[in-house]
Amino acid sequence: MNKQELIQQIRLKKNFLCIGLDPDLTKIPQHLLSTNDPIFEFNKAIIDATQEHCIAYKPNTAFYEAYGLSGWKSLERTINYLNENYPNHFTIADAKRGDIGNTSAMYAKAFLETLNFDSITVAPYMGSDSVKPFLTIPNKWVILLALTSNEGAVDFQFLKADNKHFFETVLQKSKEWGSDENMMYVVGATKAESLREIRKIIPNHFLLVPGLGAQGGNLADVCKYGLTKDCGLLINSSRAILYASNEINFATKAKEEAMKVHQEMISLLKQLF
Amino acid sequence: MNKQELIQQIRLKKNFLCIGLDPDLTKIPQHLLSTNDPIFEFNKAIIDATQEHCIAYKPNTAFYEAYGLSGWKSLERTINYLNENYPNHFTIADAKRGDIGNTSAMYAKAFLETLNFDSITVAPYMGSDSVKPFLTIPNKWVILLALTSNEGAVDFQFLKADNKHFFETVLQKSKEWGSDENMMYVVGATKAESLREIRKIIPNHFLLVPGLGAQGGNLADVCKYGLTKDCGLLINSSRAILYASNEINFATKAKEEAMKVHQEMISLLKQLF
Repeated sequence: MNKQELIQQIRLKKNFLCIGLDPDLTKIPQHLLSTNDPIFEFNKAIIDATQEHCIAYKPNTAFYEAYGLSGWKSLERTINYLNENYPNHFTIADAKRGDIGNTSAMYAKAFLETLNFDSITVAPYMGSDSVKPFLTIPNKWVILLALTSNEGAVDFQFLKADNKHFFETVLQKSKEWGSDENMMYVVGATKAESLREIRKIIPNHFLLVPGLGAQGGNLADVCKYGLTKDCGLLINSSRAILYASNEINFATKAKEEAMKVHQEMISLLKQLF
Repeated sequence: MNKQELIQQIRLKKNFLCIGLDPDLTKIPQHLLSTNDPIFEFNKAIIDATQEHCIAYKPNTAFYEAYGLSGWKSLERTINYLNENYPNHFTIADAKRGDIGNTSAMYAKAFLETLNFDSITVAPYMGSDSVKPFLTIPNKWVILLALTSNEGAVDFQFLKADNKHFFETVLQKSKEWGSDENMMYVVGATKAESLREIRKIIPNHFLLVPGLGAQGGNLADVCKYGLTKDCGLLINSSRAILYASNEINFATKAKEEAMKVHQEMISLLKQLF
């Protein structure tokens, strides 16, 4: 999916919600555990129930790999289900990969070709040649970690070199490796106040914003500092939607949570479209 | 495997070679492509031929994920084969993972429990809570990226904050999260001259040193600055051994390459044991 198509979906639905598909067998409704593929059945029900109220899905690979081969199979089935049934939804492999050039090329093949996700999250520590192989495939995206939503973000991302925070240097350097047509950045909702400075460095790039809900971020704050003329934000919510209920009606409850965010987004987007 | 057991293997074999299992279907001998599981057959032949001449194996997850479900199956078969047949070899999941706490916990489960590797490589960008979940499992190891062997390492790892390179700050902070009994660091062989400074910060930690061979690192230089009284080094070689030949006798040729490194290691270890 290219940038214009993504913006079109946002305009059409008045929505910029991404739902994180982090299935945890200890948290999903227990009646699903007797099915052949509980993870896929859970995801499928969540996707079908919420697809009207979001524009993107983001499976986090850890939650599949933890279950070995059967988990990887559930991941494949999930992305295939999305690509077949909801091709207008943007898909993100939340994989946080990154390695030397020839290895990153294999990860790009894995997620952007074999699994055919629209995008993959990438860690910046190893520098340019660890990121560039992901940028060579048309209409596919790198979503590079910049400022993350977790506590440990302060350990390194806020170090100051040459009068800039480390995450600002990551933004500054890496934006030269691609463009706002094939790169986005992860910026945590828990650091909304930093968005003002971030927008000075990357005024037009889309940001994937995790940390809403379970991690405590606030949507209005993020929009205040982060919105661009094209929206420029994908707000992720995982646990607050997935685990709204673990009863038989979990999908309906998930839909209700997604709707609540959607309503807020419709109102926030009024200033733009 | 704990630190004493690892050192015992190094003393016993006079060897500190790790072989990277990065199977690439375009490079492996073509006669294997007609088997049911070419990647596993390739790895098995390489392992059986080289196991006397190394003490560790390091499958790089990218080279399995690139082939989707069948690749993940080959990875499972490879680690199971190692654990069943060569339990005294140290195993490394070269996965370079790292995410918010609850997600890193799932990666720890995936690689250190479900797949039962001895260790996993982890990227430091997201800080303490992205690393600590990997440190809670007894006799398992985090191998944290510090100074990598690729060109892009200069982009961020050599930034200077508080008069220290960024990779030095990573070493300094992260060594408090665990100990030399459950943490190692990746330090590229192409940066041998940096080992002197690194050893001032972490005198006793094991280092995983990639970049020998295809990437141009030199074993004697690495030992000059990196050896500790317990050896303290795992030297990785992947392509130079795996792809010594792509003929029918590829495993014998791989063994010969591993033997050459082993001979050099025997001589280098004479100063220690």
